Amino acid sequence: MRVLIVYAHPEPTSFNGAMKDQAVETLTGAGHSVTVSDLYAQGFNPVAGSHDFTRRADPARLDVGAEQANAARTAGFAPDLQAEIDKLMAADLLLLQFPFWWYSVPAMLKGWIDRVFAYGVAYDFGRTWDRGVFTGRRAMLSFTTSAPPTSSMPDGRNGDLERTLWPLHAGVLALCGYEVLKPFVAHAVRWVDQARREAILDDYRQRLLHVESDRPLFFQKLEDYGPDGRLKPGIEPRTPGQHRGPRLHLD
Amino acid sequence: MRVLIVYAHPEPTSFNGAMKDQAVETLTGAGHSVTVSDLYAQGFNPVAGSHDFTRRADPARLDVGAEQANAARTAGFAPDLQAEIDKLMAADLLLLQFPFWWYSVPAMLKGWIDRVFAYGVAYDFGRTWDRGVFTGRRAMLSFTTSAPPTSSMPDGRNGDLERTLWPLHAGVLALCGYEVLKPFVAHAVRWVDQARREAILDDYRQRLLHVESDRPLFFQKLEDYGPDGRLKPGIEPRTPGQHRGPRLHLD
Repeated sequence: MRVLIVYAHPEPTSFNGAMKDQAVETLTGAGHSVTVSDLYAQGFNPVAGSHDFTRRADPARLDVGAEQANAARTAGFAPDLQAEIDKLMAADLLLLQFPFWWYSVPAMLKGWIDRVFAYGVAYDFGRTWDRGVFTGRRAMLSFTTSAPPTSSMPDGRNGDLERTLWPLHAGVLALCGYEVLKPFVAHAVRWVDQARREAILDDYRQRLLHVESDRPLFFQKLEDYGPDGRLKPGIEPRTPGQHRGPRLHLD
Repeated sequence: MRVLIVYAHPEPTSFNGAMKDQAVETLTGAGHSVTVSDLYAQGFNPVAGSHDFTRRADPARLDVGAEQANAARTAGFAPDLQAEIDKLMAADLLLLQFPFWWYSVPAMLKGWIDRVFAYGVAYDFGRTWDRGVFTGRRAMLSFTTSAPPTSSMPDGRNGDLERTLWPLHAGVLALCGYEVLKPFVAHAVRWVDQARREAILDDYRQRLLHVESDRPLFFQKLEDYGPDGRLKPGIEPRTPGQHRGPRLHLD
């Protein structure tokens, strides 16, 4: 496989850095071709804006989605952005490596998604979910936390991790067609000793040896929905983000 | 009240810009004192890194959390960051205004959170949730989407919006002690006509007139949890992020 590791941590000697190195070594050793986008080292600019485009459909008013679509049609992305798009489009496996900041990715990585997962590139009208651009390809989150695993269990203080990950798993990866693999979570790395760190890296290596065959997470298919965008009456929701129970916060 | 509006959109004439203007006008007219952080106009840097600090506890190796704690103790934040921290600490109401990109905030706003909600500033050891730094203050999300409201109903294609918002509502705002108000969501603004846009802005104005008295969303209290960080046996989970049912994706 061609693998793209997108790595977002400011400190090369961090545990995230060690996980990135482990992934490069393991996947290369297993015969895969590995490319790394080291966003901090590259000085990647995570801010979506007019600098994303070398020409504009509307120079007067910036509509990011419309300009992305135009740039996709006219090869009008700025070189730094086009370079990342090229890496993304070439990858059979997308691996995102990051520290879990505020129940999500760091801004550096969010901006890579905002800019690189451009309209007309990573998704398009009618090309989403199981009809998405990246169908047949795989993606996986790999991240560190500073809390013990019990905190992110279903009844844990941080909430059920699988619900917390819904925006990234569903809203980014599955929406664009990827087969989303179970995340690799390195819990509480700040608080564990060197032996435990090495055990985590070894677990990660074992896990990476199965990325080609691991069963992906389940998401509903487009045919499960009616024209109103809701699950058809006979379809039981089977994802962490969907249900037919009461809402607790909204309504 | 002293209100801080943090606004993240690259186009001043956008609907987000109109919502920001509406909030300034309405809240000022109601006698509140309003400050705006216009992140794009300010050229805010959303990347957390060594430039956040004017002095370092450890100049050799960057541990963002440890340096944030050190900077909080020693007034060591970079001026651009300290200016935003000062605005945040002065605000009784925090209003985040943004386009919903990839089921979350744009990188520009995520980076404002990553940097400004610093350890030792917005949270600290033993100062989280209902013992958090911002207890007694209020916060609210206000955002635009490009999909109709049915898509984000519990059985909608995008997943239940209240679960999708868990990382922001719980993981950022409630964790830091805020009373979190129901979000104001301007659905599908790209696809609606001018009359509908004006109706949304009017709804928003009406909503803003009640921000002082609206009942906040429910989150569990710290006393609900056992020492393992899980809800005590007698406590029934009452938030969108917590439950005692089976997991569907993980385990």
